[in-house]
Amino acid sequence: MATILPRAVRTLAQELTRLPGIGPKTGQRLALHLLRQPYPVVAQLAEAMKNLQANVRTCRTCFNLAEAQQCVICQDPQRLSTALCVVEDPLDVEAIEKTGTYRGLYHVLGGVLSPLDGVGLEQLTMNELFQRLDQSPIEELIIALDQNMESEATTHYITHQTKSKPLKITRLARGLPTGSDIEFADATTLTAAFHGRRTL
Amino acid sequence: MATILPRAVRTLAQELTRLPGIGPKTGQRLALHLLRQPYPVVAQLAEAMKNLQANVRTCRTCFNLAEAQQCVICQDPQRLSTALCVVEDPLDVEAIEKTGTYRGLYHVLGGVLSPLDGVGLEQLTMNELFQRLDQSPIEELIIALDQNMESEATTHYITHQTKSKPLKITRLARGLPTGSDIEFADATTLTAAFHGRRTL
Repeated sequence: MATILPRAVRTLAQELTRLPGIGPKTGQRLALHLLRQPYPVVAQLAEAMKNLQANVRTCRTCFNLAEAQQCVICQDPQRLSTALCVVEDPLDVEAIEKTGTYRGLYHVLGGVLSPLDGVGLEQLTMNELFQRLDQSPIEELIIALDQNMESEATTHYITHQTKSKPLKITRLARGLPTGSDIEFADATTLTAAFHGRRTL
Repeated sequence: MATILPRAVRTLAQELTRLPGIGPKTGQRLALHLLRQPYPVVAQLAEAMKNLQANVRTCRTCFNLAEAQQCVICQDPQRLSTALCVVEDPLDVEAIEKTGTYRGLYHVLGGVLSPLDGVGLEQLTMNELFQRLDQSPIEELIIALDQNMESEATTHYITHQTKSKPLKITRLARGLPTGSDIEFADATTLTAAFHGRRTL
């Protein structure tokens, strides 16, 4: 069972397996790929990694990724300050921004409540969310979390904690995704699509 | 369609997409993962990348990866010098070595003949293979290439070019992989398993 790969290849392959979705075989394959690239390509990748953390901060208002104390969205005076969209992480903000459909602000929770994974209120920016709701002119809170049990519980917690506030709380529509076949839709999705049907 | 991710995240995500099997979404996800790691973890990965090429060479005899002029296998006097196993790349050597079943030497071709992909004799270590066969006491040439059309053509080329030599040429057995179900085996595999059946 002895490996005969050079130490530098083994070391890199092993470091790569710390990344999500990369196992030992993929780690080796990536290491071998990098070995065959011109050195500047590899050096550029390594530099981009080293520069990452020094150049990225967390927005002090919404906890999105930022280059300054506030992210580009919180800094933008044109954004609608009466709508607040709650998401799990910065890639969700990115996905929603790419649609160009939403002009309000965001709040990045940093996860969803998941006691089994050790994620409670302290691990999230939940208290900061409630503070914002108290201090800002927010009229609509749009909950845009993934579709799973933990998100469901998190949504429930937020609505419960804010029920005394004069706040409209909405969540993203559930139904058939674009391009999908009814034949292949799962029962939960199809049920949601029925319940949410719209008059033409 | 504007991205609002900080430049350092975008840059790293983009660099990561140069790796095989990593698209834009995975690149972003990996970049975000690295952003959340303690800095030493990221720095260690970056260093392992930068150190890779300086510390790995190609064995001048078999073209396997090496730390010196020759790889550990070519340097080992205990290896059987009368058997030579032809493989496509160093990870194949690694896989075969892990079985502990083969005690001969290797020759790493660096690919297989594939004119459509621009891989001809010049891109491979084919001439070096024939030189080795002329100069070394090799009695058996074991062809251990992947199962596809290009490997088939490469195998054919090697056997054709060496037919004047007093050389036993073999290739790895084809048949049912361990743990497989006959019911689910494809027709080619099953045919090969029939043709290669062994007396008990």
